[in-house]
Amino acid sequence: MKILFIGFGNVAKEMGRIFIERDLYSALDFKPVVVGIFTGRHGGLEKKEGIELKEVLNELRLNNRLTADEKELSSLTPLEAAKTLDYDVLVELSALSIEGRGEPAASHISAALMRGKSVASANKGPVSFHYRELKELAEKNGALYLFESAVMDGAPLFNFCSRCMKGASVKGFSGILNGTTNFILSHMEKGGSLEEGIKMAQEAGIAEADPSMDVDGWDPSAKAAALANVLMGADMTPFDVDREGIRTVTTEMAKDAVKRNMRLKLICRGWKEGDAVHASVKVEEVSRDDVFCLISHYGSAVRIESDLMHPNTIVQECPDLLDTAYGVIEDLITIRDSSGLI
Amino acid sequence: MKILFIGFGNVAKEMGRIFIERDLYSALDFKPVVVGIFTGRHGGLEKKEGIELKEVLNELRLNNRLTADEKELSSLTPLEAAKTLDYDVLVELSALSIEGRGEPAASHISAALMRGKSVASANKGPVSFHYRELKELAEKNGALYLFESAVMDGAPLFNFCSRCMKGASVKGFSGILNGTTNFILSHMEKGGSLEEGIKMAQEAGIAEADPSMDVDGWDPSAKAAALANVLMGADMTPFDVDREGIRTVTTEMAKDAVKRNMRLKLICRGWKEGDAVHASVKVEEVSRDDVFCLISHYGSAVRIESDLMHPNTIVQECPDLLDTAYGVIEDLITIRDSSGLI
Repeated sequence: MKILFIGFGNVAKEMGRIFIERDLYSALDFKPVVVGIFTGRHGGLEKKEGIELKEVLNELRLNNRLTADEKELSSLTPLEAAKTLDYDVLVELSALSIEGRGEPAASHISAALMRGKSVASANKGPVSFHYRELKELAEKNGALYLFESAVMDGAPLFNFCSRCMKGASVKGFSGILNGTTNFILSHMEKGGSLEEGIKMAQEAGIAEADPSMDVDGWDPSAKAAALANVLMGADMTPFDVDREGIRTVTTEMAKDAVKRNMRLKLICRGWKEGDAVHASVKVEEVSRDDVFCLISHYGSAVRIESDLMHPNTIVQECPDLLDTAYGVIEDLITIRDSSGLI
Repeated sequence: MKILFIGFGNVAKEMGRIFIERDLYSALDFKPVVVGIFTGRHGGLEKKEGIELKEVLNELRLNNRLTADEKELSSLTPLEAAKTLDYDVLVELSALSIEGRGEPAASHISAALMRGKSVASANKGPVSFHYRELKELAEKNGALYLFESAVMDGAPLFNFCSRCMKGASVKGFSGILNGTTNFILSHMEKGGSLEEGIKMAQEAGIAEADPSMDVDGWDPSAKAAALANVLMGADMTPFDVDREGIRTVTTEMAKDAVKRNMRLKLICRGWKEGDAVHASVKVEEVSRDDVFCLISHYGSAVRIESDLMHPNTIVQECPDLLDTAYGVIEDLITIRDSSGLI
C-alpha cells in the first residue's frame, strides 16, 4: 500500500515509529510504503520506491527538516501532491482550522477521493465542516474516508457505532472531549484561576498559544459537530453547535460545585428533536456517581444512547500520541482489507 | 433467515417482542422466520412456514405453555431439533451449567455447526468451556459461532476487540461482570449482612435460588474464562480461573474499605505471563478515582489493555433484557450479512 502523508507532525512521527518498530506488535501485519511526505513548514518529499522513514525522523528530530539535501525537496504543493502523485491512500494530518472551515485539509481529501483514493485522517476539520459531501464523494468514487482519530484520540468510537451496533440507531451522545479545558477546570477546583490554568496547560504543551480553540469551546464544538454528522446523520458545522466555553467559570463556581459534591465539566451533547439533530457544548455540573466526574487531565469519555441498548460509555483514561497514531493505522488496515491492497 | 430457538426464556421473549415491534426501530431491517422453538420445560414447536411469535408469547404469558393445542408439540428433543430440522441459524439460549461443563448447550451448538449452520448464543457455558473446539468446528464448516451477549449483557465487547482493534493485541482485561455480587457488596457497605444481601437479591429476582453461582464466583469465572479464551487465545475453563467468591467478606471489611475511601468489588482479570494466559476473580479494593468504583447494582464495566492503545473501558450503566436480546440480534444480523441470507 502506497501512502502519501500530508502533514507530518507528532501523530505522523509516532506512526512512523510504529512502522519502523512493527516487530514489537505481534498482530500488526502491515507494511505500507510511504511515497510522499508533504508539510506546510518543511516542504515535501516524494519517492516512488519508498521514503526511508528512519532518516526522515532523524532529520526532523536533529535538524528540524525533512532531508539534508535541499535539492531532494519536491516542487509540488500538498494539494498538487494529492492531485498528481501515484499513491493508494492519503493520510491527512494537517492541523484543524475553524476559521478556514476545515481547509486546506478538506481540499486535500477531496482531491484524493475524486481520484478514487481512500483517505485516513485525524483532522476533525473536514469531518465537522464537510462530512456529507466528502462521504458522498467517497461513495461515488469507490473510496473510503475514515477518521477514527479525529474526535477521541483514536479510541474506537466511530467504529464502535458503525461496526458493533448493527440495526440500532444512535439517539444521542454526550461526552468530555477536550483535555485542555478539563485540565483547567480541575485546576480551578483547587482554587487556581482560569488564567493560571491556561498558562499551566500551555507550559505542559497541551494548549495552543492561542487558547481560544479550547477555552472558547471551538475544539469540542468541532468534535460535537463531527459526532452529530457521522452518528446521527446531521449536516452541521461547528458554527451550528450551541457553544459555550469556560471563560465565564470563576474559581468560586468551581470550588462551590465541589462543595456540593459535584464537578464542573465541559460537556458535548447531541440529541434529536423530531428529525432535527442538535448539538451543544456547555459547562455542566456533573454528579460524583457519573463516569464523567472521574475524567481527569486529558482523558475522555463518550456516552452513546441508542434505541436498542441502554447507554454504553467508552472511557479513554490516559491517551497519548500512541492512541492517535494507532487510530489512523486502524483506518489504514481497514482500507487495505477492503480494497485488496497489500 | 430461518431461526431455530433452543431455550425460550426472558431473553428469547424480549427478542420476540423486538421482532414483533420492529417498526419501532428505524434501523432494524431484519425479518427472520422462526421455524422452531424448543425448550426444556415446555417442549418444542416446529413450523416450516414460520411460528406466529405473538401467539407463543401470549400462551407463555397467560398459560405458561407454548401452545393451546398439545398435539402441536414436537416429539423431537432440542438436540434432535438441532440435528434434523431445516433452519439457517441456531439461537442457543439455554441456561448456563457449570457442573455440566457447558452442556447440553455445547452439544446443541456443535450439532448446528457440524451441519454448517451458524449459531448465535447468549450462553456463557460453551464459550467458557469449549471455545476453541467450537471455533474450529465453525471454521471447518464455513459457519459462524457468535456470542456477544454471553459476558456483558449484549454490550459490544467481543466485537469491540475483534472489529475495532485491527492490528492490536489484547494484553489483558479487568472488569466487574456480576451484578448480584456487586449489589450484595453495596448492601454490606451500608452495614447489611451477606445473608441479607443475598436474600434481597433473590427477592429482586436477580440472584439464583442457589446463590453459589454468583456468591462463590462461578458466574464471573465463566465470564473471565470466556474473555481469556476469545480475546487472548487461552484454552481454559472456569475451573482454571483463580476464583474467589464474596463469602469471606464481612460487613466490617466492606464498611472499613469505604472509610478509607475505597470500595470492595469482585474483579475479573486476565493477563499474560510469557505465552501463558491467566485469569482470576477476586475481591479487590478499588479506589474512588477508578471507573470500577462507580459501577453499582447490575451495571458492568470491562477495561481492555492492548499493545497499541492505552486502556479503554466500556461501561454499561443499567442493562436489562433489551441489551441482552439486542446483542443476540446483532449476532444474527452479522450472520445474515456474512452469509447472503435474507
